[in-house]
Amino acid sequence: MRLNPHLVAMPGDYLFAEVARRVQAYAPSAPRPIIRLGIGDVTQPLAPAITQAMVEAAQEMGTPEGFHGYPPDQGYPFLQQAIIDADYAPLGVRLELDEVFVTDGAKTDTSALPELLAADARIGVTDPVYPAYIDANAMAGRLGRHEGGAWSALTILPCRAENDFVPELPAQPVDMLYLCYPNNPTGTVLTREQLTRFVRYAQDTGTLILFDAAYKAYITDPAIPRSIYEIEGADQVAVECCSFSKSAGFTGTRCAYTIIPKALKARIDGQSVSLNALWRRRVACRQNGVSYPIQRAAAAALSPQGQRQVAAQVQTYMDNAHHMVATLQGAGLQVFGGVHAPYVWLRIPGQRSSWEFFDHLLHQAQVVGTPGSGFGQAGEGYLRLTAFNTAANTREALERVLAVL
Amino acid sequence: MRLNPHLVAMPGDYLFAEVARRVQAYAPSAPRPIIRLGIGDVTQPLAPAITQAMVEAAQEMGTPEGFHGYPPDQGYPFLQQAIIDADYAPLGVRLELDEVFVTDGAKTDTSALPELLAADARIGVTDPVYPAYIDANAMAGRLGRHEGGAWSALTILPCRAENDFVPELPAQPVDMLYLCYPNNPTGTVLTREQLTRFVRYAQDTGTLILFDAAYKAYITDPAIPRSIYEIEGADQVAVECCSFSKSAGFTGTRCAYTIIPKALKARIDGQSVSLNALWRRRVACRQNGVSYPIQRAAAAALSPQGQRQVAAQVQTYMDNAHHMVATLQGAGLQVFGGVHAPYVWLRIPGQRSSWEFFDHLLHQAQVVGTPGSGFGQAGEGYLRLTAFNTAANTREALERVLAVL
Repeated sequence: MRLNPHLVAMPGDYLFAEVARRVQAYAPSAPRPIIRLGIGDVTQPLAPAITQAMVEAAQEMGTPEGFHGYPPDQGYPFLQQAIIDADYAPLGVRLELDEVFVTDGAKTDTSALPELLAADARIGVTDPVYPAYIDANAMAGRLGRHEGGAWSALTILPCRAENDFVPELPAQPVDMLYLCYPNNPTGTVLTREQLTRFVRYAQDTGTLILFDAAYKAYITDPAIPRSIYEIEGADQVAVECCSFSKSAGFTGTRCAYTIIPKALKARIDGQSVSLNALWRRRVACRQNGVSYPIQRAAAAALSPQGQRQVAAQVQTYMDNAHHMVATLQGAGLQVFGGVHAPYVWLRIPGQRSSWEFFDHLLHQAQVVGTPGSGFGQAGEGYLRLTAFNTAANTREALERVLAVL
Repeated sequence: MRLNPHLVAMPGDYLFAEVARRVQAYAPSAPRPIIRLGIGDVTQPLAPAITQAMVEAAQEMGTPEGFHGYPPDQGYPFLQQAIIDADYAPLGVRLELDEVFVTDGAKTDTSALPELLAADARIGVTDPVYPAYIDANAMAGRLGRHEGGAWSALTILPCRAENDFVPELPAQPVDMLYLCYPNNPTGTVLTREQLTRFVRYAQDTGTLILFDAAYKAYITDPAIPRSIYEIEGADQVAVECCSFSKSAGFTGTRCAYTIIPKALKARIDGQSVSLNALWRRRVACRQNGVSYPIQRAAAAALSPQGQRQVAAQVQTYMDNAHHMVATLQGAGLQVFGGVHAPYVWLRIPGQRSSWEFFDHLLHQAQVVGTPGSGFGQAGEGYLRLTAFNTAANTREALERVLAVL
């Protein structure tokens, strides 16, 4: 058997595995409980409307008349319709049922969607960036060689305080460009005008945009686009990945969805091909859909009652984010994000690297962040803090951090 | 954007989609209810021990102390341990927790595992075969061109009545060989000696075996191996994919697992590499694990009480299979399988092709089977019937079939 050389050559560990490793190694000697503002995992229990729907669906599965076998590959129509009604109709975005693909997680789809493209598709990402985008493409051999901390065939668009975290357009052609807004890890957003510039670029160059909107529930200003399809023409150039993980606390429940408009087409060998049809074919042969009780739970999160309950949870996290921003800025630190996103992107004071500052906070403050450099070279000198802990822990963590600066 | 030419060029529809299309087109004019013995989907409700565990876990997720965020990538240790204790220890197979990968379905893993290998890995399959193995590899460009109904770079091992459905060893080298036993679609099994021959071949040639044991719960004779790891040395050459779908009625609940022993290694550039470590790296970047309530439900299927309940369900399906075999043989027909598998592989009497016989049964008997030719060229002239319907429907379907022969 000849192994996949790209998988064998993958550098280091996945970022969060390395963070977990350092925390585990230190934990036994910590003088007080460690507070985790590192991994972006939610902490509040599932809302009552959601658990009730999941319990009822589980009970249904135990009855002859309520049992459900293989789900539809693309998801149950009841969930596809709920997604359209709750997440798109209010934005004036019109979708049909078969433009919605229900899936077990946004990571599953953001890492698999490049398989729509040629094996040597050129990939573009902002930097810093969610590492799974890069790792999945590297394993598939699309990124070339890893030299000096960079991939030879990857186009990166740096985002730093110096450019206000607004990426430039790619300087060389790419087949597919990942855009994640509200952004993980920086917590920053693009205005409607800034996002329109990318849509026009994609239209002009025939580039596919993968828009990751996993954090759209955290947008507090309706002027900021929640969906790329709010931009006219985006349905011809963009797929959009969304998740119940951060909006409804589904990190342990697992449900998400991807939109592939039927207007999205590309030419090959003189024919025009629908990416929606290609993805449907791929989905039918690679998986068997999402669990019925989980789809019922997701639909409940989109019901009027469920939406009120999960909005209250999101507000709790955003109160934490706003407290972090205010406290750190009050101490004279430079912070970004935290307004339309559950992530605060802290510019590390002094000369410490991201990992040095991570270790400093872990050992001196017993607070876990995520080193910005783990998200890319442009993240060096930053630390990501998440708003997903309790209000009390968040406040204490901030006090501890300020005490050791 | 340059599309994946292999995905664009995929021939026809996925087999079961075409079956569903023909049934839907005919259904409005059917003179009586159609009985479906086509797709391999279970029909009995989840067992009480399973629904109870799922309900309790869903309720847990609604409490601060019982909430679970991101699951471990590879699965919860409680489920990994239950799998080892219930499915392997009784066979004398010893596994460690991190050799068990919990996943949402065997299709997900059987279609993704070739990514461990080089992009041009040579694939071997038996024929007839579960079509998803072929489609997934074809989309990834591993099978060459599709000409005259065959893939130019795919090695096929024909299984027909003439060779007693026991495949020959591959005549040319392959990197990976799919073996599914009890077999889908033929329902046949390999004896310990026959399976040993493949393990020795894989050891001698450095071939990776992907052993799909999704139907192992249907084996009625302990002399037939339920796991390839019952064969000495198989842990150095084989991964094994199993599923709760057919053993515990999880087609709509979604849980499965893959075993990758740490003894399974391959050499590349002079170094020995663990496939377990490679897959762990891949899993960490491509998905976020399986839902907590679903993993609890799966563990409940492996509890002593759950095992008794699901064994009774399996017995019900096997009673159907035995009835089908006895009835068809009694009518002088040639049938295979149905003894250690929920599938009966009927040799079509007369000169009809598989699709012609499918249409004949649909229109004259209002019974749905699956055309053998949809599983490969060696399946031409056969029809697959499943045992997953009710006893009453199965009996009526058989009466109808005999009446139109």
